[in-house]
Amino acid sequence: MTLLVALTWDPKPWVERFGQYLPEHPVVVLGEPFERSKVRYVATWGPKPGSLSDLPALEAIFSLGAGVDHLMGYPSLPDVPIVRVSQDDLTRRMSEYVVLHCLMYLREQRRYDTAQRARTWEPDRNPPVASDVRVGMMGFGVLGQDAARKLQIMGFDVAGWSRAPKTVEGFQIFSGEEGLTRFLARTDILVSLLPLTPDTRGILNKSLFAKLAQDGRLGGPALINVGRGGLQVETDIVEALDAGVLKAATLDVFQVEPLPQDSPLWTHPRVTVTPHNSAVSDPDMTARYIASQIRRHEAGEPFQNVVDLTRGY
Amino acid sequence: MTLLVALTWDPKPWVERFGQYLPEHPVVVLGEPFERSKVRYVATWGPKPGSLSDLPALEAIFSLGAGVDHLMGYPSLPDVPIVRVSQDDLTRRMSEYVVLHCLMYLREQRRYDTAQRARTWEPDRNPPVASDVRVGMMGFGVLGQDAARKLQIMGFDVAGWSRAPKTVEGFQIFSGEEGLTRFLARTDILVSLLPLTPDTRGILNKSLFAKLAQDGRLGGPALINVGRGGLQVETDIVEALDAGVLKAATLDVFQVEPLPQDSPLWTHPRVTVTPHNSAVSDPDMTARYIASQIRRHEAGEPFQNVVDLTRGY
Repeated sequence: MTLLVALTWDPKPWVERFGQYLPEHPVVVLGEPFERSKVRYVATWGPKPGSLSDLPALEAIFSLGAGVDHLMGYPSLPDVPIVRVSQDDLTRRMSEYVVLHCLMYLREQRRYDTAQRARTWEPDRNPPVASDVRVGMMGFGVLGQDAARKLQIMGFDVAGWSRAPKTVEGFQIFSGEEGLTRFLARTDILVSLLPLTPDTRGILNKSLFAKLAQDGRLGGPALINVGRGGLQVETDIVEALDAGVLKAATLDVFQVEPLPQDSPLWTHPRVTVTPHNSAVSDPDMTARYIASQIRRHEAGEPFQNVVDLTRGY
Repeated sequence: MTLLVALTWDPKPWVERFGQYLPEHPVVVLGEPFERSKVRYVATWGPKPGSLSDLPALEAIFSLGAGVDHLMGYPSLPDVPIVRVSQDDLTRRMSEYVVLHCLMYLREQRRYDTAQRARTWEPDRNPPVASDVRVGMMGFGVLGQDAARKLQIMGFDVAGWSRAPKTVEGFQIFSGEEGLTRFLARTDILVSLLPLTPDTRGILNKSLFAKLAQDGRLGGPALINVGRGGLQVETDIVEALDAGVLKAATLDVFQVEPLPQDSPLWTHPRVTVTPHNSAVSDPDMTARYIASQIRRHEAGEPFQNVVDLTRGY
């Protein structure tokens, strides 16, 4: 009945919450001694490959966080359901980040930060209106749709792109390769919320940036990547920024994390770097969700939100 | 039939728009020669006292911007209706600013800006949730209600305060002097959207700051003033910041504008200064609104949105 917590960050608040919501299940932590044969569930994010093998009684893996690519290339991943913890809290946090950074672009916050440092009083008397700014949401799943709806409420002109054709009330959604070109041509702020799969790896590259709208009200297109670092080609981002193909970039995820000290992204004047915290799982809400799934399972019902391993998300 | 444009900023885009939407009315500009006896309407923001007197044919003054205090202490203000231009566009822009800066506090954007400059990768693994952050909206008119609704959609816990008791579905609204103390005690981010009147002048002072919540999830209360500079006592703001009574302040308005070069606010590490542009009137939408009001008036109908001079807003 044991639950194994396998995280790359401080497990303490998680262990506390699981103890609270699953009092009948002993909780152990990867890195400390525990009996492998007793582990029935794993709650994990980003552990070393191999650390989840040799768990003979395992019945499910709970992936903390919206993406599950951290488990994908995993050698000898146990053949049990992988349950994605995509709860409301994570969705809300992601939307906060996306709305914040779209508003920072719309309201030229970086320009005013620079003006403040120079003690310059320089209001823009003809600033862009949100409805003139076209946000393109790449990836239109649960997270993308919530962010899109909130951006729409703030007045932005939002459209989506997804790999397969999709209909969501109130939004124009482009799809496929041909749709991507038309989608990019009407996008001033590109928000990437794609899952990382073999198809999407490196998709945020110079050939894609060159297709973004160059005629928008923001003086050039901006990129916000809150998906995965593997989606982006960082040398292409820097090149596009320096060539004026991209006006600015807000990056929460990177090809290598933590972002290496010598990355030019840290100091680029038009790049905002955040440490992969756009949507941090709240231990309390996540533990409650996992506890509810374990109770369902132990009552003989199927898990919800099970990852499709053939799609990779 | 002449329309006089009297602005403290570049009138050109305004003159163009009025020419477009009111082709039958000649448009003149304060500062250039014009016949005073022919001026029937004035569209104005912040002209020198006295510049609107001696206009014998005047029928109405249109005030560009949400507040009308710039006309209030005016000597010999012509006795004609003052029409406030409080259109949707201005409301939307104000809400953008308020939501942006509340999200910057919630998401600790300034902390991450500092971390980026130091090339530090330091995610907060237990960040506050929007529903834990209590926004207090001081002034709950058209602008305050729109911002409050949008903040609520983003997940914030929003309450309002207004001078007179008021009911707005979905919000707890405090009122009066006694209500103010209770309102402040539950406020982590204080948003000031008050009109400037003799009652509200200097209301954002150290005695008020001392009543704000000190137990919130943001590590201390923050102030966002988007109302008028005359509401705030700037020496008290700096003192409260340095004493830890206020954690941070975002100020779009100032006691003297442009903010003087020697103001300590420019360089205070926990102050964000913007140049009174939280809600800049869009020339196009405003000119269309004024044209529609002039057409109403000339068809014998009353103006809408006329200022109550006894209340001062």
